[in-house]
Amino acid sequence: MACVGICGSDVHYVVQGRIGDFIVKDPMIMGHEASGIVAKVGKNVKHLKEGDRVAIEPGVPCRICRFCKEGKYNLCPDIVFCATPPVHGNLSRYYVHAADFCYKLPDHVSLEEGALLEPLSVGVHACRRGGVGLGSTVLITGAGPIGMVTLITAKAMGAAKVLITDIVDHRLGVAKELGADYTYLSTVGEDEQEAVRTVHSLLAEPPDISIDCSGAEANIRLAILATKSGGVAVIVGMGAPEVKIPLVNALAREVDIRGIFRYANEYPIALSMVASGAAKVKQLITHNFSLEDTIEAFEVAKTGVGNPIKVMIHPLKERA
Amino acid sequence: MACVGICGSDVHYVVQGRIGDFIVKDPMIMGHEASGIVAKVGKNVKHLKEGDRVAIEPGVPCRICRFCKEGKYNLCPDIVFCATPPVHGNLSRYYVHAADFCYKLPDHVSLEEGALLEPLSVGVHACRRGGVGLGSTVLITGAGPIGMVTLITAKAMGAAKVLITDIVDHRLGVAKELGADYTYLSTVGEDEQEAVRTVHSLLAEPPDISIDCSGAEANIRLAILATKSGGVAVIVGMGAPEVKIPLVNALAREVDIRGIFRYANEYPIALSMVASGAAKVKQLITHNFSLEDTIEAFEVAKTGVGNPIKVMIHPLKERA
Amino acid sequence: MACVGICGSDVHYVVQGRIGDFIVKDPMIMGHEASGIVAKVGKNVKHLKEGDRVAIEPGVPCRICRFCKEGKYNLCPDIVFCATPPVHGNLSRYYVHAADFCYKLPDHVSLEEGALLEPLSVGVHACRRGGVGLGSTVLITGAGPIGMVTLITAKAMGAAKVLITDIVDHRLGVAKELGADYTYLSTVGEDEQEAVRTVHSLLAEPPDISIDCSGAEANIRLAILATKSGGVAVIVGMGAPEVKIPLVNALAREVDIRGIFRYANEYPIALSMVASGAAKVKQLITHNFSLEDTIEAFEVAKTGVGNPIKVMIHPLKERA
Amino acid sequence: MACVGICGSDVHYVVQGRIGDFIVKDPMIMGHEASGIVAKVGKNVKHLKEGDRVAIEPGVPCRICRFCKEGKYNLCPDIVFCATPPVHGNLSRYYVHAADFCYKLPDHVSLEEGALLEPLSVGVHACRRGGVGLGSTVLITGAGPIGMVTLITAKAMGAAKVLITDIVDHRLGVAKELGADYTYLSTVGEDEQEAVRTVHSLLAEPPDISIDCSGAEANIRLAILATKSGGVAVIVGMGAPEVKIPLVNALAREVDIRGIFRYANEYPIALSMVASGAAKVKQLITHNFSLEDTIEAFEVAKTGVGNPIKVMIHPLKERA
Repeated sequence: MACVGICGSDVHYVVQGRIGDFIVKDPMIMGHEASGIVAKVGKNVKHLKEGDRVAIEPGVPCRICRFCKEGKYNLCPDIVFCATPPVHGNLSRYYVHAADFCYKLPDHVSLEEGALLEPLSVGVHACRRGGVGLGSTVLITGAGPIGMVTLITAKAMGAAKVLITDIVDHRLGVAKELGADYTYLSTVGEDEQEAVRTVHSLLAEPPDISIDCSGAEANIRLAILATKSGGVAVIVGMGAPEVKIPLVNALAREVDIRGIFRYANEYPIALSMVASGAAKVKQLITHNFSLEDTIEAFEVAKTGVGNPIKVMIHPLKERA
Repeated sequence: MACVGICGSDVHYVVQGRIGDFIVKDPMIMGHEASGIVAKVGKNVKHLKEGDRVAIEPGVPCRICRFCKEGKYNLCPDIVFCATPPVHGNLSRYYVHAADFCYKLPDHVSLEEGALLEPLSVGVHACRRGGVGLGSTVLITGAGPIGMVTLITAKAMGAAKVLITDIVDHRLGVAKELGADYTYLSTVGEDEQEAVRTVHSLLAEPPDISIDCSGAEANIRLAILATKSGGVAVIVGMGAPEVKIPLVNALAREVDIRGIFRYANEYPIALSMVASGAAKVKQLITHNFSLEDTIEAFEVAKTGVGNPIKVMIHPLKERA
Repeated sequence: MACVGICGSDVHYVVQGRIGDFIVKDPMIMGHEASGIVAKVGKNVKHLKEGDRVAIEPGVPCRICRFCKEGKYNLCPDIVFCATPPVHGNLSRYYVHAADFCYKLPDHVSLEEGALLEPLSVGVHACRRGGVGLGSTVLITGAGPIGMVTLITAKAMGAAKVLITDIVDHRLGVAKELGADYTYLSTVGEDEQEAVRTVHSLLAEPPDISIDCSGAEANIRLAILATKSGGVAVIVGMGAPEVKIPLVNALAREVDIRGIFRYANEYPIALSMVASGAAKVKQLITHNFSLEDTIEAFEVAKTGVGNPIKVMIHPLKERA
Repeated sequence: MACVGICGSDVHYVVQGRIGDFIVKDPMIMGHEASGIVAKVGKNVKHLKEGDRVAIEPGVPCRICRFCKEGKYNLCPDIVFCATPPVHGNLSRYYVHAADFCYKLPDHVSLEEGALLEPLSVGVHACRRGGVGLGSTVLITGAGPIGMVTLITAKAMGAAKVLITDIVDHRLGVAKELGADYTYLSTVGEDEQEAVRTVHSLLAEPPDISIDCSGAEANIRLAILATKSGGVAVIVGMGAPEVKIPLVNALAREVDIRGIFRYANEYPIALSMVASGAAKVKQLITHNFSLEDTIEAFEVAKTGVGNPIKVMIHPLKERA
């Protein structure tokens, strides 16, 4: 293993011991945003050989259920997914994975970028589910790592105008550098209708698609209320299990509400984005640690001290 | 005008004087489920002539906005729609309408059926938005007139199994006659998880698509919870403006939530269904009145005395 | 094995020894339209047990390539497909197959119908690729077995009007019984424009979708020329490798030309159609033989003596 | 009128007097790629006022037929389209047009760019019909103005790799500057299979989508043969009415063949591309003329002397 990013869900498991119905009962290795160098290949593997640098798509589905056969393998009930209990993750020195879920990196794509294909694939899935395309106007609520990769993806798809919001000013600055056309510093408890007006005024029109990457109820409501009639509100962030939403507003304007769960068939797209230079994800990495310093790495990710966006652990590297 | 059906929204306006932001401020003629006989045509009209029997699509859009140009004219903000205030409806002896929204009825399609194309178009729009198709398994909650036309449409599209629920037993009997494969008498306050299990057990699998035609929060929740991962919950019924929904359940299983607002380009489909015999809508009409007895007709629709499904007013007919 | 239907491709391999680049070099068992009774199951198989009656989807894809992961497994270059050289077919007493491509038949679906799911799936794939739906007007050229299953499917999907053509009158009679709204006896060498006019006149409008099930150049051209602007010409029949088509006519009217190759994810739909009674395929079987009389069965299929539609071989049955 | 570009079809009408069934019988003003400054507005027009700089979408549809209602107004049989006989074009000093087909240009978008929205919209329509998206691999055959705008659009949509071919080396150089990842100088009469191999080798895989912008039979065939199974061959260029195509190859690999006719709802997208800087179309203009020098302008466009890509006429400008 070469690089393993820390995801919010990893921190959640460490701190809470569970996410919804997924409960950590036995000691579990973390890690699912990873890249590595091939140490050995099975005898039927043709597209990889020892020494190849690869990005690792962390979920291996059953390949035989209806979901798998229809190309929606992210919904496979029997998928084996790194660091989703009880399956171990790949934050380790060596790890065995299905070869067809390992993607060879071109020479000019780094192992760090390879690890970042995981969150980037979430952004790609979100934008594809939302129908982002050439000329789209997009609202993104939440400028954490997932908001950032969603922003990068929306711009790479040709979105004409992207507005991103957050309650942390620092993040909006990073978003600007990553290509956000507009940013909006929102405040907890602000008036809902006022927020809608601000969004419409900044974009000079309602967004075609709104994508919540925060999980906050206020943002989920804003994503619905602000979106153009006939548009889509994609909800990526998972927060409270029960949410009060302005349903009649959504229905009467045919604003669809769509969630996303991981990704399917999006790793190759994410890789092509990085390879072509369309997605400059490297600048998302703010902190780096050796494997021995994993506890410290999680501490940074957990506390947010030092404004981390993405914390990366490097099993291949010596302790500094 | 020949036949004008009474819709729940008509009753709502009569009783409450408003539906959401649509408020009746001045006296307003009701009626939007209508058919008639052409009395006169404009000089540029080629597809119609005096004496033609026609179904009348009640909304005439602006034809110049983005929604109109993109084929989503139901979302046109400037649409002029019969009996949506402040626009008069067509429950009258004579009425003027744009010729291209009048559909000539074949000889074997009755004027009553012509009027029923309006609710049927709602069912067609709901099923198309939900992606109902050959082999689909469908749950419909609510067996009022809209639930019935949705049922008829789902079966006409080749749905393999349709389960319809209601809290009124009588309606389920009618639904059976109209082609429901399964019915389920639900009760107010029943356990949510129990209802999900019942649906899955009756259908022997989760429905691909659930369509709520009741507007009741419990049914909206059931539509989301019961639907197969990757499926669609269509919400036709409009109830409380704010609804508490199991959002994480929907997101994590990629169950899309889609509303519908009226219909667009669905009148021709509805007409073809009736003309080919695929939609036997006539049996939905349970009560008939002359124009002079309109007050009595609304009384029946309002009180539900006599188990009305669809109440039809006949401006052409003499008082009995 | 219980029932194995003879397909045109089987006859083609027997007579010509090849279809395009697929060449029979070694002795090969025929058969790919099949049903059977489970004699034994692997230890991981949960949905089947000994004695279950099953339909067999004859192609098992690699499960690891892009096509498989995206749900288009019919395009998998490494698919192992019964009776496509060099893979043996299943016209035999016993046969081993991947369990997830065996579909358990409900009690009321016969083994004969199980075998017919194979051609029916081709019809479903053709109609789905063409976008046939509620209210569609459809032209089908060629009333052989594939034309028949396409007709059955189009009607089950809610097509309002289906016109089917053939050069053999007898077949049109069968098509009428199967639900064709219009039939048209075409003649070899007839005038192209005249044929277009006939189609438009019978349907009272151009078809939304045309589906050629003959492979004849004249029909392929008719499918393109007759289709409504913005519609689809699906070409199922494979004839000459090179065909002269009226391309500018297709382009300037945006009539899409789409081929189909086998099917993907359509067996469950085909099964649901038969189970629900929407597809009455049994009447397609005109001739039955025991396994010992296979040569005679192929003779009938080859010569067409006795107007066979579908010839079925029954490995389970004693010679009459 | 401010700027009017000369299109290949304009030259065709001047030289041949017809394009297919469209025949110039009476003197006709040319021009349909245009921008202007509003001199007067109708009383109901709200989004424009005198002095506004606008791009003019040249076709005004009937607004009442099925095609118009379904959002495919480019297929409207009664569309009135500039410089398609017998309708006059807008290569003149003043011209009257429906206000809703005039798009106000932001201050930073020039009138020249406004005129170029017309060919750019063709490129957008071609790429949308082909399904170009993030990560797509695209082959474009023909590097004339339409090939160039298609290239610009494909890159703006996030295509990972675009290969463009032409028989004129000079054009490939321009294409490189516009963002082509690969170019390939093809030769008339070259071996078909060899060309396919070259395409696959340059792209390191078959293209997902091929778009012919030349109309040459060899390129149309290459577009079909080279495309990945399950992909799309979009044919933009209209050449000979009858073309011999490798149909079985297309069918058996489910490579769809789709034409395009003008555009619908794509002007706003094209404008957003230019406004956001995603489409740098200005460099396509190689020659400029005053209205008085129109004959000379057509001479350049016709003969190709001086390697013109786009020749622009400026009714507002004084003769140099």
